[in-house]
Amino acid sequence: MANSRIIHSVIFSLKHEGGSVEEQQFLKDGNTILSAIPTVQNFRVFRQVSPKNDYAFGFSMEFADAGAYEAYNAHPAHVGFVKERWETEVTQFLEIDYQDVF
Amino acid sequence: MANSRIIHSVIFSLKHEGGSVEEQQFLKDGNTILSAIPTVQNFRVFRQVSPKNDYAFGFSMEFADAGAYEAYNAHPAHVGFVKERWETEVTQFLEIDYQDVF
Repeated sequence: MANSRIIHSVIFSLKHEGGSVEEQQFLKDGNTILSAIPTVQNFRVFRQVSPKNDYAFGFSMEFADAGAYEAYNAHPAHVGFVKERWETEVTQFLEIDYQDVF
Repeated sequence: MANSRIIHSVIFSLKHEGGSVEEQQFLKDGNTILSAIPTVQNFRVFRQVSPKNDYAFGFSMEFADAGAYEAYNAHPAHVGFVKERWETEVTQFLEIDYQDVF
């Protein structure tokens, strides 16, 4: 049965060389900063390994409902991470939001 | 710590009208047929609700390792679903495979 829970995922690529310190630092900082935002649940950092798309990494997280998602979007830690890191280190990205059908 | 587990997700759109019986039937049949393949774990059916991309639905599932993923790809139930339903009812899709970084 559908409920209000949202799984938010973003697949992305970085300007940094694969395996570089800068790449690892971005992933670690994203994990530390974004997972600490109060409405974020089950924050995970992934390598995107399918050869069928061009994205290298993924962040995923869960929100209890749309209000929790909006609180994350507006949170200063999220806004700051987007402005200071995402906009300068990410070369491409795609956001995906899932809600249960059954 | 990275492990061999893979989260496979595919975002897609259907040729069927939104809210139609055909749309629901595709989602139900995908759930029934694909989730029954032995190496598939945690099969889920999602509505894709972000306005930032054009895909309407998602299937996601987990595999213990690459061998389990390959067994799914080669399984007759998967091959048959792709040939009989996916290729005739899906208008666009993107596959995403995640492995843990940390």
